[in-house]
Amino acid sequence: MWKLNDNYLKLPGSYLFSTIGKKVNEFTEAHPEKSIIRLGIGDVTLPLAPAVIEALHKAVDEMAVKETFKGYAPDLGYSFLREAIAKNDYADKGVNVTADEIFVSDGAKCDSSNIQEIFSADCKIAVCDPVYPVYVDSNVMAGRAGEWDPKKEMFTNVIYMPCTAENGFVPELPKETPDLIYLCYPNNPTGTTLTKDQLQVWVDYANKVGAIIIYDAAYEAYISEADVPHTIYECEGARSCAIELRSFSKNAGFTGLRLGFTVVPKDIKQGDVMLHSLWARRHGTKYNGAPYIVQRAGEACYSEAGKAQLKEQVAYYMKNANTIYNGLKEAGYTVFGGVNAPYVWLQTPDHMTSWEFFDKLLNEAGVVGTPGSGFGPSGEGYFRLTGFGTYENTVAAVDRIKKL
Amino acid sequence: MWKLNDNYLKLPGSYLFSTIGKKVNEFTEAHPEKSIIRLGIGDVTLPLAPAVIEALHKAVDEMAVKETFKGYAPDLGYSFLREAIAKNDYADKGVNVTADEIFVSDGAKCDSSNIQEIFSADCKIAVCDPVYPVYVDSNVMAGRAGEWDPKKEMFTNVIYMPCTAENGFVPELPKETPDLIYLCYPNNPTGTTLTKDQLQVWVDYANKVGAIIIYDAAYEAYISEADVPHTIYECEGARSCAIELRSFSKNAGFTGLRLGFTVVPKDIKQGDVMLHSLWARRHGTKYNGAPYIVQRAGEACYSEAGKAQLKEQVAYYMKNANTIYNGLKEAGYTVFGGVNAPYVWLQTPDHMTSWEFFDKLLNEAGVVGTPGSGFGPSGEGYFRLTGFGTYENTVAAVDRIKKL
Repeated sequence: MWKLNDNYLKLPGSYLFSTIGKKVNEFTEAHPEKSIIRLGIGDVTLPLAPAVIEALHKAVDEMAVKETFKGYAPDLGYSFLREAIAKNDYADKGVNVTADEIFVSDGAKCDSSNIQEIFSADCKIAVCDPVYPVYVDSNVMAGRAGEWDPKKEMFTNVIYMPCTAENGFVPELPKETPDLIYLCYPNNPTGTTLTKDQLQVWVDYANKVGAIIIYDAAYEAYISEADVPHTIYECEGARSCAIELRSFSKNAGFTGLRLGFTVVPKDIKQGDVMLHSLWARRHGTKYNGAPYIVQRAGEACYSEAGKAQLKEQVAYYMKNANTIYNGLKEAGYTVFGGVNAPYVWLQTPDHMTSWEFFDKLLNEAGVVGTPGSGFGPSGEGYFRLTGFGTYENTVAAVDRIKKL
Repeated sequence: MWKLNDNYLKLPGSYLFSTIGKKVNEFTEAHPEKSIIRLGIGDVTLPLAPAVIEALHKAVDEMAVKETFKGYAPDLGYSFLREAIAKNDYADKGVNVTADEIFVSDGAKCDSSNIQEIFSADCKIAVCDPVYPVYVDSNVMAGRAGEWDPKKEMFTNVIYMPCTAENGFVPELPKETPDLIYLCYPNNPTGTTLTKDQLQVWVDYANKVGAIIIYDAAYEAYISEADVPHTIYECEGARSCAIELRSFSKNAGFTGLRLGFTVVPKDIKQGDVMLHSLWARRHGTKYNGAPYIVQRAGEACYSEAGKAQLKEQVAYYMKNANTIYNGLKEAGYTVFGGVNAPYVWLQTPDHMTSWEFFDKLLNEAGVVGTPGSGFGPSGEGYFRLTGFGTYENTVAAVDRIKKL
């Protein structure tokens, strides 16, 4: 008799954003006359840049002609894209990552949930708290997280590293030694960062205890301060302990186009076996490459025109984030993030819970954000707003919040 | 100390098509003057149909404008595509599958390798032998296949069901009861089929013993005979025991565009839990939807123009398959498949092994095919040729083989 993977049954409730969507729908049905401004989910709103659109049309035309038609892509990505990434994201920044260490995929969500598969089932994971839910949930499904403790709102076999205003959102090295450490900087959901020195501490720690850092740098394009590293490979020793995940979703608006990549340096080994070989084997067996037309769109992000256009898009979203940050600060809120990331993380007023503040904001201001507690117990008492809306809506939302 | 998933180390050698690629490269380097005709890998050669190209351009234009830009897709696929599939592939054929039982993905390779994740680690799988390697390899990676027995060329904990000329390529019900049964019809690699009555035997068996059938129908578009089922849901009782995988790769040439779907009927349950819920949760956590523009391309396959154009493409490849089938038969080969599938499966002459025949064909005729033994031990002594080349190359290849 077949049996289902009962690890799935350990996952509490539904996915955070489904719950939010449900609440918003209920509100809209009850109050169809009220306008809603959504600054909750991290989806972009600007259309694709002209250089990207041009590349897509051109690639589509190639697919229409026998001589230039492209069938199966190379499992690990087309050379033209891997080379462009290696040059622009690494070599040009003085960082040693080669094209054949770059694995092109259909996005960082897939990569960040699939990467755990190449590790042993008994590896113990450490995550920041609050955290992007996918890291934990994918490990729950794989049976690595233990049981859900509904009282603590934590899994019994996961090391949670609190990141709160008290420690400046810099996680402390854990007491118990993890095997896999998930770090996301600039951080989702808090919008905070580590300096290069602070990240070096983690790289040194990982090399010392024999842990792997899974470094999610999906928001790299939003870094504005000089001492914030753009890649973990700026840190000495990272090539022997760190995997880096990158995305085209937030720097180029590819949320609906789907493109990302993962760097697995060939220096990460166990005995004679490169971790790189396992990830390559996974790609070869369980994946069939990102669409050719989308990879060409990715390449266009690195053209001179593409770079300039994407810089403007990022600036637009950062103007929104600054508007939220400064507006709420003026209104007396305690706010974080918003400087090197499109997310503003605020402390809820009057000791409200995150969901209480969610309801208040929805009901009284018609603004949708994301309750901090949805990202983990240390997110309780916090709330996330994103700079990914339109500028007009962002200004209007801040005005409404100020009037609360 | 981190540890890698050592199940990966149980996988023997490299992926079949990598080995073939290497051999062909070596030959080409040694004999740069000789022309090679590739009838090995199942990749298509015709460009995308005009209706598909038109839909792609239109969708790209939508992505260029704020008002019509699309960010994150619904995890399970856009309604417009799920409805088109439900209508055309199921309702119009009198089969009961609803749009919300259809999960859109980036292809059947991903789905066929990921589907095992929602089952318990101790489920035992049964596969046809020969078989598309992904079914077995994905289960090896998940630790479900036992150890590799290099002598038998089999994994110790997998039930292999031989499909050879002796049993007409119809697998017998296994002696040991499996939990998951992988069936692919029309079959890759043999090109053979089951009649509806023969498939009904499997559905009845699965319902009786409590097994799930994972039915890969990627080659459905090539069915030409009336008694061959287009979907497993034509069989009575399949809704409570069968998952169906479908692809746009072979009917519409999407190998480089990436689109597929999986049907998980809501009738498949364990206690109160629908298997459908687990797959939905997996999509929501580990996947972020197929690109909007590709889903629009998929929708175009169901337009009147799209249907007519794709029918022509399928006819073109089937003409190739018939050319191979008839040509080799005339030349005295024993051949199978090629009637309801783009694959021709031939018995190697003079008791040669599959790889011996591969080398002979490459060296003496400059034709690349796929050794049957690469698909499993019962594939030894067989060889696969595909109808996916150009007509001119196919005719030339058959001529060269005839002259051997």
